[in-house]
Amino acid sequence: MEKSQNGELNEDASICGYDSLHHLLKENLKPHHFKEVNRLLTGLNCGKALETITLPESATTLSIEHDFDLQAFCFHADKEVLREPRVVRVGLIQNSIALPTTAHFVDQKNAIFAKLKPIIDAAGSSGVNILCLQEFWMMPYGFCTREKKWCEFAEPIDGESTKFLQSFALKYNMVIISPILEREMNHGEVIWNTAVVIGNHGNIIGIHRKNHVTRVGDFNESTYYMEGNTGHPVFETAFGKIAINICYGRHVPLNCLTFGLNGAEIVFNPCATVGEFTEPMWPIEARYAAIANSYYVASINRVGTETFSSSFTSGDGKPAHSDLGPFYGSSYISAPDASCTPSLSRNRDGLLISDMDLNLCRQFKDKWCFRMTARYEMYAETLARYLKPDFEPQIIRDPLLHKRSL
Amino acid sequence: MEKSQNGELNEDASICGYDSLHHLLKENLKPHHFKEVNRLLTGLNCGKALETITLPESATTLSIEHDFDLQAFCFHADKEVLREPRVVRVGLIQNSIALPTTAHFVDQKNAIFAKLKPIIDAAGSSGVNILCLQEFWMMPYGFCTREKKWCEFAEPIDGESTKFLQSFALKYNMVIISPILEREMNHGEVIWNTAVVIGNHGNIIGIHRKNHVTRVGDFNESTYYMEGNTGHPVFETAFGKIAINICYGRHVPLNCLTFGLNGAEIVFNPCATVGEFTEPMWPIEARYAAIANSYYVASINRVGTETFSSSFTSGDGKPAHSDLGPFYGSSYISAPDASCTPSLSRNRDGLLISDMDLNLCRQFKDKWCFRMTARYEMYAETLARYLKPDFEPQIIRDPLLHKRSL
Repeated sequence: MEKSQNGELNEDASICGYDSLHHLLKENLKPHHFKEVNRLLTGLNCGKALETITLPESATTLSIEHDFDLQAFCFHADKEVLREPRVVRVGLIQNSIALPTTAHFVDQKNAIFAKLKPIIDAAGSSGVNILCLQEFWMMPYGFCTREKKWCEFAEPIDGESTKFLQSFALKYNMVIISPILEREMNHGEVIWNTAVVIGNHGNIIGIHRKNHVTRVGDFNESTYYMEGNTGHPVFETAFGKIAINICYGRHVPLNCLTFGLNGAEIVFNPCATVGEFTEPMWPIEARYAAIANSYYVASINRVGTETFSSSFTSGDGKPAHSDLGPFYGSSYISAPDASCTPSLSRNRDGLLISDMDLNLCRQFKDKWCFRMTARYEMYAETLARYLKPDFEPQIIRDPLLHKRSL
Repeated sequence: MEKSQNGELNEDASICGYDSLHHLLKENLKPHHFKEVNRLLTGLNCGKALETITLPESATTLSIEHDFDLQAFCFHADKEVLREPRVVRVGLIQNSIALPTTAHFVDQKNAIFAKLKPIIDAAGSSGVNILCLQEFWMMPYGFCTREKKWCEFAEPIDGESTKFLQSFALKYNMVIISPILEREMNHGEVIWNTAVVIGNHGNIIGIHRKNHVTRVGDFNESTYYMEGNTGHPVFETAFGKIAINICYGRHVPLNCLTFGLNGAEIVFNPCATVGEFTEPMWPIEARYAAIANSYYVASINRVGTETFSSSFTSGDGKPAHSDLGPFYGSSYISAPDASCTPSLSRNRDGLLISDMDLNLCRQFKDKWCFRMTARYEMYAETLARYLKPDFEPQIIRDPLLHKRSL
């Protein structure tokens, strides 16, 4: 097997032998230093840690028996005079695949179903209201190979993955967001990157298709599907107004903005991303979106290294290899007040649970006035002008540009 | 004197007794742990630190004699076949005021000039090509008091602060960005928050007026001046295409985007901001703008606590106080590849110097394809629609929303 392009990175990380940045800092800094570092890095006022939530023993038992990371936190908002707190319990699941990518596709999918069942049960028994799975949770991330066989994992909206989750939604009175590879039967069997939103009665509320499609390095997604045609829907569920910004869309400020303009209070960002490629951006982009748009962002990334039988090149002149390096997990939640939870493990399956008072969104709209001061009319005009083929950027040229210095 | 609203924060920070987050981590973690933490936090591939630059002894001597932090780093880009590297040396100055806010205004301004001279000389003798000062560098940040007397610090574009800097620009063949309080004589003596761009021949290339005006807590800027009327100009200087995004504008994704659409390669973000209010956002927003828009961002914030003779309230029901708490400095530079320099001191005056190869901007446009995949036509249409009074957000309502759970 070729050494992964992230080989050096993996060695460094394994030398450190740490589970998450939060653990690494907490275990190696003195408490008063950790407190201050934590204030600077996670935006918690005066260095106070987020409160943790005590979960039912059934959930912690499941996490031990099935070896998944389980963490639970609580975001607070100020008490208001006229509105009661609107506390929603959100759950995020990150996981590795369950069988080698060479196993029969039916077996692979069933093994993932079996692996997820106890994690979803832990979420349900913990009273999670809205649960989100990772991008393409029902398959390996085979798109790096550019092989078309992975299309066989695609399902219609009401396919077996949806049916599998609908039973849990009904059983636990839980909204479930299911990001799948979709095959749209009624439009020429075309493929999409789609999130299915399942209501707490087990019904399908609707779908969203990824707006911005990755065309970077090994992430050859545009050879499988195109930019989504579902706009920026906000789903009004029993537990709040939510939207789904799939993976690469987190890099696009206008995409994040538009979910906010449509009224989202929680934006889920299910991803599949690896190592040095994006890990330094991971703690930045979701938090910025939460701050700038006054909503919560729930970020999920898978874990584990997926090895493929065919090797592939990365367009970087380096030898072919047969894996992407490890997906780094680190799922976490960001709040509009610039605070965030610690991240789940970089290596292990995990369930992150967080209570969040949705009143915080409007409170921070009122505090920072980002909507009021946004000057959207100026930007609507600018973007319209930018679209014209003869657009000329606003450049003020130094008239002495080519004068020689004395 | 009232205890500052940031009192608790200051105590925590002083218990730690640290100069910057970078120092705190470096001095308290084992080297291999620090290397990994640094990789995660500053986006440096495989944990390699940014190269430092050796500065002339005259500069280091000035920094010791005049007690200012001096740090210098280097961002690299890949070598290209057809373009030579375009390395620009950028300097950022952060500083406290020089006399109490109760001193005669002429004395206060002259004392700041005298204080800045050796720092500007250090930049000039280090071969800095483009130097940027902090927001309102020529005065205390008195706007928290809502007193109108601070307007007396305002100057026309070609006023004494500009004249002071023009001589350095000419002497050192250096572009200087000078963020001042402007009084516009030809339009009714109105006040603006303005950056003057001085060319490397000492000429005034042009100005930019702050696009988005702070209306948050103690930052009562909208009682002094309104939203800028200069658009999003990019200044084509002898050393590259630059723009200035003044202070609060860093919170506005569309503002950051538009400087990029106009072709900026370096966006300077001169600020004046304090403590727990924005410190956790500080390492997030500039880096996001650099990543999403494929340009460098140079962020500056003043240092020190400024005490005023009149106490003022903050709209938070707490007692009146006479200072904002400390400005936390921490000036730093972010690159389009998600890397960044360590920050300058949180407490001391400082000069941050960095070489940056501007070729990195286009290289990351090509790598990540953010422009190509941006779907601006969709967002131009969305924003135009949003502006209409009868705009209806795209909401998909669960038809079973009010069905009772079983």
